[in-house]
Amino acid sequence: MTDPSLAPEIALASDLFDALRAASLDAPGVTRASYGPGERAAHALAAEAARRAGLLVEWDAVGTLRATLPGRDRGLPAVAIGSHLDSVPHGGNFDGAAGVVMGLAAAAHRARRGMRGARDLVVLGIRAEEMCWFPAHYLGSRAAFGLLPREAPETLRRADSGRTLAEHMAEEGFDPGIIRQGRATLDPTGLRCFLEPHIEQGPALLAEGLPVAVVTGIRGSLRYPRAAVHGENAHAGAVPRAHRRDAALAAVALIAALDARWAAWEAAGRDLVCTAGILATDPAHHAPTKIPGTLRFSLDIRSEDAELLAEIDAWLHEEAARLEAARGVRFDFGPPTHAAPAVMDEGLRAALRESAARAGVAVREMASGAGHDCATFAGLGIPSAMLFLRNANGSHNPDEAMAMEDFAAGLAVLSGALDGLMA
Amino acid sequence: MTDPSLAPEIALASDLFDALRAASLDAPGVTRASYGPGERAAHALAAEAARRAGLLVEWDAVGTLRATLPGRDRGLPAVAIGSHLDSVPHGGNFDGAAGVVMGLAAAAHRARRGMRGARDLVVLGIRAEEMCWFPAHYLGSRAAFGLLPREAPETLRRADSGRTLAEHMAEEGFDPGIIRQGRATLDPTGLRCFLEPHIEQGPALLAEGLPVAVVTGIRGSLRYPRAAVHGENAHAGAVPRAHRRDAALAAVALIAALDARWAAWEAAGRDLVCTAGILATDPAHHAPTKIPGTLRFSLDIRSEDAELLAEIDAWLHEEAARLEAARGVRFDFGPPTHAAPAVMDEGLRAALRESAARAGVAVREMASGAGHDCATFAGLGIPSAMLFLRNANGSHNPDEAMAMEDFAAGLAVLSGALDGLMA
Repeated sequence: MTDPSLAPEIALASDLFDALRAASLDAPGVTRASYGPGERAAHALAAEAARRAGLLVEWDAVGTLRATLPGRDRGLPAVAIGSHLDSVPHGGNFDGAAGVVMGLAAAAHRARRGMRGARDLVVLGIRAEEMCWFPAHYLGSRAAFGLLPREAPETLRRADSGRTLAEHMAEEGFDPGIIRQGRATLDPTGLRCFLEPHIEQGPALLAEGLPVAVVTGIRGSLRYPRAAVHGENAHAGAVPRAHRRDAALAAVALIAALDARWAAWEAAGRDLVCTAGILATDPAHHAPTKIPGTLRFSLDIRSEDAELLAEIDAWLHEEAARLEAARGVRFDFGPPTHAAPAVMDEGLRAALRESAARAGVAVREMASGAGHDCATFAGLGIPSAMLFLRNANGSHNPDEAMAMEDFAAGLAVLSGALDGLMA
Repeated sequence: MTDPSLAPEIALASDLFDALRAASLDAPGVTRASYGPGERAAHALAAEAARRAGLLVEWDAVGTLRATLPGRDRGLPAVAIGSHLDSVPHGGNFDGAAGVVMGLAAAAHRARRGMRGARDLVVLGIRAEEMCWFPAHYLGSRAAFGLLPREAPETLRRADSGRTLAEHMAEEGFDPGIIRQGRATLDPTGLRCFLEPHIEQGPALLAEGLPVAVVTGIRGSLRYPRAAVHGENAHAGAVPRAHRRDAALAAVALIAALDARWAAWEAAGRDLVCTAGILATDPAHHAPTKIPGTLRFSLDIRSEDAELLAEIDAWLHEEAARLEAARGVRFDFGPPTHAAPAVMDEGLRAALRESAARAGVAVREMASGAGHDCATFAGLGIPSAMLFLRNANGSHNPDEAMAMEDFAAGLAVLSGALDGLMA
C-alpha cells in the first residue's frame, strides 16, 4: 500500500524512534522534561538526523528546533511540519515525537529525491507542550510566537524541580529575555501552513480498523476544575426526603442530567465529550450513615463547537439553579477555564484526504479531544491541519503503541499532500 | 395544656438534665463513653434521683440500671420504660438520656401520688447504645437479653481506647462472663411491654409544629458501606462517548435512578429514605482531565417495610447489571449489612394516641429512621413503642435542643397511657 520510495525514510524514522527511546529511557517508559535532559537529548537526535538528511539545522532563542529544506524562493512563506519533543514522566515514545520524526522523514525524502519546492519546508521541534511540567497550555509554541505573559519566565515553575522557567531555559542555553520582552522567534506571516502529525490519544482508529485520520478541529473546552455543592450533613435515617439538603444527590442529579443531554446532543450529530473526573464527598466528615453536606466535583466539557460550549455553560447554571431551589443546596462552580476550539483548515484537510485517496490509505475525519500545539498556529490564522496515527493504549503512559506500518501510511498521506503545498 | 400535677416531676427532670450535663461536660457538648466515666456518672445521677423518688434501684450484671416502682403483684410482667445513658463524643444532653429521665419522672409521679399499679413499673437505664464506641448494634440491650456472640467481650474493642469490652465492663464493676456464657440478665417474659421516649433525630416535628410523635416502626436498613464501580482511566478529551468506561458516570446513573425510584415510591406512600453518604473518585489518580477508572461509594437504604428493602436490593443489582452492559464497567457492591425493621405494637400506639387526645397534645405518627434499643425489645416479641420528642439541630452533636415544654407534653402522654398499662 505504501509508496516503496519511502522505504529509506521509514527506516530512518524507525531508527530515530529507537534512538529517542534509548536516550530518554526512564523505566517504565521515557521521560523528556520540558527544558530538561530528556527533551535536550531528543532535540540533539532529531538535529543529527536532520543534518544527515541534508537539512539546515538551527534552534531559535526559546529552543525551537528548525530543520529546513530550502526552497527555490526563500522569501516565500514556508510549509511547516512538526510537533513537540517533550513527554510526560514515564510516558510513551510517540506522543509528540511522532510528528517531528514524520516531518523529518518527509523532508529527508524530498531532499534525497531532489524534490526542492518553490518554498522552504521547515520541520519544527517545539519545546514544552506537556502541561505536567510547567502549568501553561502550549508553552513552547506560545513562547515562539511571543504569546506568553512577560512575567512567565519568573512565575512559571517546573513541577518536579520547583525552579523557574527562566532558570531551566538558561540552563539549556536559551534566552528567557525574549519572553520578558514580548518578542517572537516565529513570524506567522512567514508560514504558509502548519501540519502536525500526532498519535491518536483515544481508541477510535483502533476500533474502526483505520491507520490514519484527518483531524477536523481541536476541541475547545469549558472546564470547572474546582466545583462544589453545599447542603447539610444530617442523619441518613432520621431525615425525610423533603427535609434533606443532600449535596451528593444534587450533584448526581446535575451530572446525570448533563450525561442525558450529552447523549441527545451526540445523537443529533454534535461533537461533545463530558467528564466529571473528580467526585468527592468530604473525607473528614463523610460516612455511610450521614447525608453528605458537601461534595467537590469537576467538569470538563469539550467540543469543536464554541456555540455548543456556551450553550452548555448557560444550561449548567440554569439546571443548577433549578436543583438549588428543589433540593435546598447551593452550587459553587468556582472559576472556569475556557479554551477556544481550533478549526482545521478545510483546504489542507482536502489536500490530506485527496492524498490519502491517491495513496490508497483509508482515512476518516475526527475531532481531536486533546489540545495540541496546532491550536496555537490555528489561533494565529495560520492554515493548520493534523493527521492522527492509530495508537493503542492511549497516551501519556509507557504503553503507547503506534505500529510503523501506520506511521508509513501517515507518511505517505503527508508526503503526497506536500507536493501541492510546496508549489 | 400539661397536667399541673406533673409540675414537680418536670422540675425533677429539668434538674436531672442539668446535673447530667454538668457531670459529663466535654465542651462542646457532653461525652458519655459506653462503659466509661460519663456513662457511669449518668447512671449514678439517675439512680440518685430514682432513690429520692422512692424507687428500688439496682444494676444487673451487665450494668443495666433498673429503678422499680413495685406493683401489687410483683410476679406479673412489668411495664418497662427507658433508653440508654451513653452519648457520642461531644454529643448532646438529650439523645438517650431523655428516655431515662422521662421514665423516672413518670415513675416518680406515680410514686408521689401513691398510684401503685397491679404490676411493677421498671425504668431501664441501658448501657452502650452508641455504635461509635463499640462496633455493635444495641450492645447494651442485646447484652442484657443474652443476644451477643459469646466472643464479644474479647472481640469488641472500644474505638477511643482500643481496649476490649471485657476490660471496660470489668473496670466499671460488671461481669463480661455473663456474655461469654450466653446468659441473659433480662427475661422477655418478665416484661409486659417496653416504652422508649427519645428525641426526634430529624426535623419533622419542628417543621410541622408538633411537640410529640408516636413512632410507627423503626426502619430497617439495607446498607452497602463499601461499594465500588470499576471502569478505565482515560483521556477526558480524546475518548469518544461510545468507547468510555467511565466509573463516575456509571455510579451517577445508578444513584440518579435510585433517587428517581425513591421519589416514586414515596409518592406511592411507601416509607423510604436513601443516602449515598460516600462518593469518591480515587484521590491518587483522579484529575479534572481524566475519565475516572474507579469510584467508591456507599448506599444506606432504610424502610419500615422489609419487602421494599428486598425489592430495592434486587432492583439495584438488575440496574447495575444493565449499566455494566451499557457502559463497560463493573459494579462491586461489597458486603451488605441488613437490619430488620421493627414494628411498634399497635395496641401501645393506640394507647399513646388516645392518651395524647385526652391530654390535648397534638401528635402525629412517624417512622424512626435511626435504630434504637426498642428494636431489640420488639425483635424479642415484647410489645414495644416509642415516643419522639421535638428537637432542633438533629442529634449526635452539641446543638441538640429539646424544650422542656415538649418534654412535659411527652410526659403527659406517657403518664396518661400508663394508667391503662399498669392495670
